[in-house]
Amino acid sequence: MKRKPRILILGAGYGGMMTASRLSKQLGYNDAEIILVNKHNYHYQTTWLHEPAAGTLHHDRTRMRIDSVIDTNKVKFIKDVVVEIKASDKKVILEGHGELEYDYLVIGLGSEPETFGIPGVEEHAFSIRSVNSVRQIREHIEYMFASYNNSEVKHDDYLTFIVAGAGFTGIEFVGELTERIPELCKEYDIDRSKVKILSVEAAPTALPGFDPELVDYAMSLLESRGVEFKISTPIKEVTKDGVILATGDEIKSKTIVWTTGVRGSSILDKSGFETMRGRIKVEKDMRAPGHDDVFIIGDCALIINEEINRPYPPTAQIAIQQSYTVSKNVKALLSGSSELEEFKPDIKGTVASLGGGEAIGIVGTKKLYGGSASTMKKIIDNRYLYLLGGLPLVVKKGKLNLFS
Amino acid sequence: MKRKPRILILGAGYGGMMTASRLSKQLGYNDAEIILVNKHNYHYQTTWLHEPAAGTLHHDRTRMRIDSVIDTNKVKFIKDVVVEIKASDKKVILEGHGELEYDYLVIGLGSEPETFGIPGVEEHAFSIRSVNSVRQIREHIEYMFASYNNSEVKHDDYLTFIVAGAGFTGIEFVGELTERIPELCKEYDIDRSKVKILSVEAAPTALPGFDPELVDYAMSLLESRGVEFKISTPIKEVTKDGVILATGDEIKSKTIVWTTGVRGSSILDKSGFETMRGRIKVEKDMRAPGHDDVFIIGDCALIINEEINRPYPPTAQIAIQQSYTVSKNVKALLSGSSELEEFKPDIKGTVASLGGGEAIGIVGTKKLYGGSASTMKKIIDNRYLYLLGGLPLVVKKGKLNLFS
Repeated sequence: MKRKPRILILGAGYGGMMTASRLSKQLGYNDAEIILVNKHNYHYQTTWLHEPAAGTLHHDRTRMRIDSVIDTNKVKFIKDVVVEIKASDKKVILEGHGELEYDYLVIGLGSEPETFGIPGVEEHAFSIRSVNSVRQIREHIEYMFASYNNSEVKHDDYLTFIVAGAGFTGIEFVGELTERIPELCKEYDIDRSKVKILSVEAAPTALPGFDPELVDYAMSLLESRGVEFKISTPIKEVTKDGVILATGDEIKSKTIVWTTGVRGSSILDKSGFETMRGRIKVEKDMRAPGHDDVFIIGDCALIINEEINRPYPPTAQIAIQQSYTVSKNVKALLSGSSELEEFKPDIKGTVASLGGGEAIGIVGTKKLYGGSASTMKKIIDNRYLYLLGGLPLVVKKGKLNLFS
Repeated sequence: MKRKPRILILGAGYGGMMTASRLSKQLGYNDAEIILVNKHNYHYQTTWLHEPAAGTLHHDRTRMRIDSVIDTNKVKFIKDVVVEIKASDKKVILEGHGELEYDYLVIGLGSEPETFGIPGVEEHAFSIRSVNSVRQIREHIEYMFASYNNSEVKHDDYLTFIVAGAGFTGIEFVGELTERIPELCKEYDIDRSKVKILSVEAAPTALPGFDPELVDYAMSLLESRGVEFKISTPIKEVTKDGVILATGDEIKSKTIVWTTGVRGSSILDKSGFETMRGRIKVEKDMRAPGHDDVFIIGDCALIINEEINRPYPPTAQIAIQQSYTVSKNVKALLSGSSELEEFKPDIKGTVASLGGGEAIGIVGTKKLYGGSASTMKKIIDNRYLYLLGGLPLVVKKGKLNLFS
């Protein structure tokens, strides 16, 4: 008897989870063996992580056990770390389980923080990238508050919080901080005026590429809550004592959170794929060039927006859309067809939360501010949960306080 | 018109607070001006601090604003730090308010951790001594858990907790840790088996001087919850990496909590009083030898138990009893009498909590174990609140879950 073809999905982020979920619904038991590999036994919502990082939402609200969402009768889950992909041998090396062969591979290994080669970032800065990393940020911040009053000498750098990068993640995190810091001041008997939140951005504006009117709105709002913006201010080095700016000035701080963007997965570089900053420029059908059986999804996939000749930013929205094309195309290959669908992104809009029930966004051509943008953001978050796990998952993990 | 005599009370611990409270009730408005000086605007229950240090009780449950308990029409409260006492000039130097004269002085400046000259304790060890210090311990422990999983290399020293000293505070803290650590393991996805709690004691037994049968009970119970005892194990040095034992062996740990006992206040040494480890051997009427107008109370007062020719251990119980004698004697001096009362301690018993609703104790000649000892401990805690602030304070801050 012929062995069932094996579909191997690497990574349980937005792209990998949605592909596994869709394939398990579209394929019969005998069509294929589906294996999902992920380093944790849970999936988490990367786009929500600024909240548990600041401590405004518990991290368990952002994650779910993989076996509670995926049909484990149809998808075999392996908890393991991917070491290398050997595409020429059609196999993957895992840290614990050794080699695993595949017939079709879907790579959704996510992203890593982009340091731009700035010295000290890896050693001394935090990044918002996983449940593990944001729990550490939350507790580090709280430890700084807890330590401040227990020292005869007052360390102002304990109460200076630098967010490097004023892109989406940086701005959303700063927004949550403005909500959380007054609570911490109360808990640890510290005057709010002693605490500094700095948003440091190399580009000439916060939220580069976003509508200027909305950027102004966001900056004014955050400034009114005590955020100090340092725009057009490149950082030259991160040290254990703070950051050194390109001007040579130093800002002392024990907490530098690095949010200047992401690159793809270093596993792709290591595995011999041709990449640009860890991302593979995919064919129109989402396959890696030169590999008929390898699909790339999410942050690892580079797709050029031909209107402006620049890559689409890697977002949850685009990863979810890609999962439709990828699962359809894997199914087509399984059935012997070579008629694959082309992926066409359909960017519906972008919403950035600012904390405290506020947000800004563009949906279609419409600008949203304040409460209505915040409600839209929650609707977007809930929609993903609905696609992934239906109404039960929305009820369990969704943001149901739509209008607060 | 003659100025009212001024009674100055330094320190709002058990002794200072109870003296202020009693004097404000016993004296009329025109009898004296009463001033209480304390470095925080709150009083806290030193004997409860092992709980917020472990994170099993919120620190706000152990403290109360001074002006919420003391009658501020009769007692003037000054929030300031005592720098020096100039007994020969009958005045006290405060950090912020400068000089303050007195007619009668009550010194209740509490204690400081005893390091026995062991190198590294002040720099690298935590101590359970104030609201500020225990908040830092709680958050440091949580930060260790939060950091463990966010590192590729696993640092076992992050999950090794050393409690130096198995006296009352050390044992009570270890007991709370056994309650707290399973919660932290759950919160941070860590196996309980990876965490080590070490109780390290130089003396040949835990709880030296306590009933051996009760000591056995306590140690067995704590061992069954995963505590590892290292008895007869002196520590030679504390470093940033852990402790070095007298044998030369090193135990790596990022968390050393120092509970090997206390000394009195270094302000007394600095002010020229004759002290033994920061404590003044008081006269029978609680006055400092050679100073007719200076009373010593609480941890700063040294009183010999003549039955065994050793000092009474400084406890809340004895400080509260002293406040009765001190307030009575201050009142007598005010009224021109020289007939002062002799202080006679009446040690009713000792109860040590072990966490998880367990305790051990001796009340009179009766040994108490388990739940009944735990209930007794809570009754003792509530009794103090009753003495200080009556039933309203018991209701507000008391331990009302007597049987759980």
